[in-house]
Amino acid sequence: MTATDGPPLGVTSPAGFRAAGVTAGLKRSGRSDLAVVHNIGPRHDAAVVLTSNRVAAAPVHLTRQAVADGVLRAIVLNSGGANACTGEAGMADARAMAQATATALDLAADDVAVCSTGLIGTRLPMDLVSAGITDACRTLSEDGGADAARAIMTTDTRAKQAGHRAAAGWTIGAMAKGAGMLAPGLATMLVVITTDAVVPAEIGQRALAEATRVTFDRLDSDGCMSTNDTVALLASGASGEEPPESEFTAALTAVCHDLAQQLLSDAEGASHDIAVTVRGAISEDEAVVVARSVARSNLLKCAVFGSDPNWGRVLASVGTTDATFDPDQLDVSFNGVKVCRGGAIGEDRSLVDLSPRAVTIDIELYAGDASATVWTNDLTYDYVKENAEYST
Amino acid sequence: MTATDGPPLGVTSPAGFRAAGVTAGLKRSGRSDLAVVHNIGPRHDAAVVLTSNRVAAAPVHLTRQAVADGVLRAIVLNSGGANACTGEAGMADARAMAQATATALDLAADDVAVCSTGLIGTRLPMDLVSAGITDACRTLSEDGGADAARAIMTTDTRAKQAGHRAAAGWTIGAMAKGAGMLAPGLATMLVVITTDAVVPAEIGQRALAEATRVTFDRLDSDGCMSTNDTVALLASGASGEEPPESEFTAALTAVCHDLAQQLLSDAEGASHDIAVTVRGAISEDEAVVVARSVARSNLLKCAVFGSDPNWGRVLASVGTTDATFDPDQLDVSFNGVKVCRGGAIGEDRSLVDLSPRAVTIDIELYAGDASATVWTNDLTYDYVKENAEYST
Repeated sequence: MTATDGPPLGVTSPAGFRAAGVTAGLKRSGRSDLAVVHNIGPRHDAAVVLTSNRVAAAPVHLTRQAVADGVLRAIVLNSGGANACTGEAGMADARAMAQATATALDLAADDVAVCSTGLIGTRLPMDLVSAGITDACRTLSEDGGADAARAIMTTDTRAKQAGHRAAAGWTIGAMAKGAGMLAPGLATMLVVITTDAVVPAEIGQRALAEATRVTFDRLDSDGCMSTNDTVALLASGASGEEPPESEFTAALTAVCHDLAQQLLSDAEGASHDIAVTVRGAISEDEAVVVARSVARSNLLKCAVFGSDPNWGRVLASVGTTDATFDPDQLDVSFNGVKVCRGGAIGEDRSLVDLSPRAVTIDIELYAGDASATVWTNDLTYDYVKENAEYST
Repeated sequence: MTATDGPPLGVTSPAGFRAAGVTAGLKRSGRSDLAVVHNIGPRHDAAVVLTSNRVAAAPVHLTRQAVADGVLRAIVLNSGGANACTGEAGMADARAMAQATATALDLAADDVAVCSTGLIGTRLPMDLVSAGITDACRTLSEDGGADAARAIMTTDTRAKQAGHRAAAGWTIGAMAKGAGMLAPGLATMLVVITTDAVVPAEIGQRALAEATRVTFDRLDSDGCMSTNDTVALLASGASGEEPPESEFTAALTAVCHDLAQQLLSDAEGASHDIAVTVRGAISEDEAVVVARSVARSNLLKCAVFGSDPNWGRVLASVGTTDATFDPDQLDVSFNGVKVCRGGAIGEDRSLVDLSPRAVTIDIELYAGDASATVWTNDLTYDYVKENAEYST
């Protein structure tokens, strides 16, 4: 089961992990900005999912190389600068971060992954970063998970942690940062997940790919793709338990879903969390395409901000896709009220209550049996003003 | 040459056209809301470009059928309601509009096109519409172009007209509505272009397709595609002049460009008009794909609102495309200042002055010789607030 009370599980909840979060001085706010997570084993299996953006940040390139052998012993993360679009100098900085961590922990540099988040196109102040790494490695502790989670925040208003304790004796812990739609620096999402289960790297990679596919990949806050997105899984094997792959994947997916919902609900400026669910598609892929098209409609998101169940904007977005459907067969419901039936006017839209933060938009394509949900937020204010007030 | 002084050319500037704009009572504001444009010949060649949205409004379906034979004698247009997603009843309403116009002007109904703009998913008050059509047809005049242009406005702050007088003695006149990014009802764009040149329908269709391809199709205000977009060309042949196709196409393109820029500059809430130009692409198609990706980045558009030449967000958008380029070879200039060179930090971003309304973003891919420009606007306010202020 996923933990729902008590102190939240974090990256140091599973056995075999130490972490720290310190203030290196990268943020003008003076808040903590540098974290290290250290897997002390006995195993060091690792899997990573990285941004598919072709303009990837230096730490992304470094991490891709570091994890190629399925082994990571530590991850160093900083907020206050993304080290993206920084050229060869930026690559050297990322390598220096890995090396400093490796030196402090007596590891090989290629067993250290690096994550950065913050503004694109500026160099990191490496003197401060290096001192911070030394400091963090000195303060690593088995209770350091919460400190680490705080140190990777940028515009997040809350630290984000989640986890899962399996009855069989193994545990997953995790932390994430990202403030959704309104996050600057392209809403970089960094996630570190730890477990004391025995999870060989190959299995971990499969599990992580599946878990992210149906959670983080379906969180579409503003259609913008970060240069720095990183989701890393570190497995220490310290519990000695080796769960069945399906069971581990399910637990990992639940933890990722929990974190994704925390990211969604911390999107700055947003007043609604919107779940766009497409049913009756001929394939899950087509369901995702349609849901994503709707979730990316600025006009619809403005309407939701204005508490207007504007199903016409839903249909207009559906109509831009190549998915299989008949325009005269589409149904659309807002919060359970079927305001559009057969591609035309359905229930009275005044029956829809959009005052709660959670909004569901359900679209029925009547083409097949597949379904999918994409989560997004509403759009607020001046852009909104014209769009949201139009029908009131 | 395109007219730059004197009263603006409009749909009644070419010989052979009458128009009217009247108040049918469809708008709560009490402003005029119904227009008719009548081609009195001697020729009645017509061409139309319609929205590619699969959820197309009833008048779009009707107009597609009406123009199939290359002949239109009149167009009836209303604001105050899009007649989209209105099912069979909406189709009947659109047919009734064509029939009422045909009856009043003694035409065949299938020689009348229909355009509607306004809210999606509500029926038109057909009693008011019918009376308005009768009224409009009674007041048609050779000076009615400006009245017609006003009657099709929704959230537009200005009527939009343009035209071209050729030395050879033929003329193009045009009107458009659409308020860009912030227009509700999906920013429906309606454009009627008239000419007294002899333009056989087949040639007119080719010319219109080319003109819209490089003008309206590259105006990407918010990525949302209307259910009602219509661009119609009516040719009366009244001048007796038959221009070479290339010459007519060039003049038509200039008129469409003029209208597109008027649409751009009337986008509500926008404080900047942004021209995203991609050069060095291996094909014009790839240049458009890259430029459109950048033009659709909410984060970039927020940065421009905040007068922040955030080239990192440009690169991040470029990186999401499949276009041919090397991430380490990209240059980006804002208003002529090359703030990114070789995919990394270039000139000091403080050298960029983003206070003028017009902003140019130039991206060099170094992959080929093709180029293209896509126009968009900035994003304003609360959504913006977090994104725009991040680096200040």
